[in-house]
Amino acid sequence: MPRRITAFSNPLVKSARSLREKKGRRLERRFLAEGLRILTEAREAGRLPETIFFAADSAAHPLVTTLVDAVEAAGGEAIETDRDILHKLSGKDNPQAVVGVFAEFDTALEAIDRSAAPIWLVAERLRDPGNLGTILRTGDAVGAGGLILIDDCADPFGVEAVRASMGALFTQRLAQARWEEFLPWLRAGPGLLAGLALDGSEDFRAPRFTAPTFILVGNEAQGLPPAYAAACDVRVRIPMLGKADSLNAAVATAVMAYEVLGQLNPGAA
Amino acid sequence: MPRRITAFSNPLVKSARSLREKKGRRLERRFLAEGLRILTEAREAGRLPETIFFAADSAAHPLVTTLVDAVEAAGGEAIETDRDILHKLSGKDNPQAVVGVFAEFDTALEAIDRSAAPIWLVAERLRDPGNLGTILRTGDAVGAGGLILIDDCADPFGVEAVRASMGALFTQRLAQARWEEFLPWLRAGPGLLAGLALDGSEDFRAPRFTAPTFILVGNEAQGLPPAYAAACDVRVRIPMLGKADSLNAAVATAVMAYEVLGQLNPGAA
Repeated sequence: MPRRITAFSNPLVKSARSLREKKGRRLERRFLAEGLRILTEAREAGRLPETIFFAADSAAHPLVTTLVDAVEAAGGEAIETDRDILHKLSGKDNPQAVVGVFAEFDTALEAIDRSAAPIWLVAERLRDPGNLGTILRTGDAVGAGGLILIDDCADPFGVEAVRASMGALFTQRLAQARWEEFLPWLRAGPGLLAGLALDGSEDFRAPRFTAPTFILVGNEAQGLPPAYAAACDVRVRIPMLGKADSLNAAVATAVMAYEVLGQLNPGAA
Repeated sequence: MPRRITAFSNPLVKSARSLREKKGRRLERRFLAEGLRILTEAREAGRLPETIFFAADSAAHPLVTTLVDAVEAAGGEAIETDRDILHKLSGKDNPQAVVGVFAEFDTALEAIDRSAAPIWLVAERLRDPGNLGTILRTGDAVGAGGLILIDDCADPFGVEAVRASMGALFTQRLAQARWEEFLPWLRAGPGLLAGLALDGSEDFRAPRFTAPTFILVGNEAQGLPPAYAAACDVRVRIPMLGKADSLNAAVATAVMAYEVLGQLNPGAA
């Protein structure tokens, strides 16, 4: 049976609100996800929030009912509230009907089973949370297994990254590792490491990719460090005909991922 | 000779600051662009700001000197200021060394010469300014002629769109039109209209594209209206293997644009 809370000063509200900031997430090891679409996708992927806040005026919506029942059946807490509180939690003028508080996932590299998918995405010092979420969303679309974040990336559990992932945060595997951990792990099994580099020696359509291919993209402003590029099995460039010298990192990753998908799974593409 | 201004209350500062909001831009028909990289790209494309604000502590930077000289030679105004004012203009904690005030361009459809490029990007009700800027940036990279905005899109002269375009706003043609204007204009000359649609009848690699190809992408949440999709010469879909039912709009545009580029200009790709 849902509780009803409409006071900003309620400790559950304050605790959830703190997860909008990195400090709060680090302390609690929890994060926020919002919206019926994303929470339903999470539920279908077997991920339920520990706490769900829902708008009283949407309590009769069948997707809300399903979510609330599922959270309570799993021992979580459902909290009926109002749009003011949801606005405070989501930070949006026009808040979603539901906001969930989730426990952070395990992001250990060792939890990755590379044979589970033909494509894996790997991002190095990716700083923009929107790019991070968009890359997760692209990974879902190309049937990638997940995203491996190398060195100091944006927080994948931040509000903006979760939002941009459109639910893919819950369907893709997610790992975080230092380069010195990643490279030995990669080399301990099968895998073609394909780095995107502005001075890549081959056009991105030239190599014959083999599964699993790990697509490595570097920092938005600086690209891959030379030593990282040198460790790749192939270094490819995406042609650029204009004045600009680079593509958006999420765009470059997607163009490359669809080329690899087209080669590995021509029936799908 | 640059003037020195460090008062927030100065009318030039207040007027420039007002361009961060849509209301101010509509009133002044001007917009802001910031950063040495973007302003240098603009200068090389023949676009100079009417007013340039630059940080006193970067006045000796050769790119700053070049910009200031060019603006003054063209009859514009150069204003030496401090980081506090630049912070106020750019809205960033770590402001760029230069901020320029530019006159808005002509965005009439009639100004477009379709024979100038083999690819044109067309976006319908694109609402996210980051997506809009990223699509301009991709257009530059694939050698597109420009971006045509259909119906009610985000403002291409907004700070976030300009920033995401990374200077491509100054190298790509830009037009804004209603669908009822666009379609007759398109049909009055050569051009293949290729729409991205979730229920597209063909895989995006299947058609043989011919120059000029106009790539049409729809609203982020709703995609193309059925009537717009029906008016396309080809309706293509990008395969999606996962749980999500769509790609980010800027990502989808780029994946499609690189396919068209690869067909029309196989030497480049």
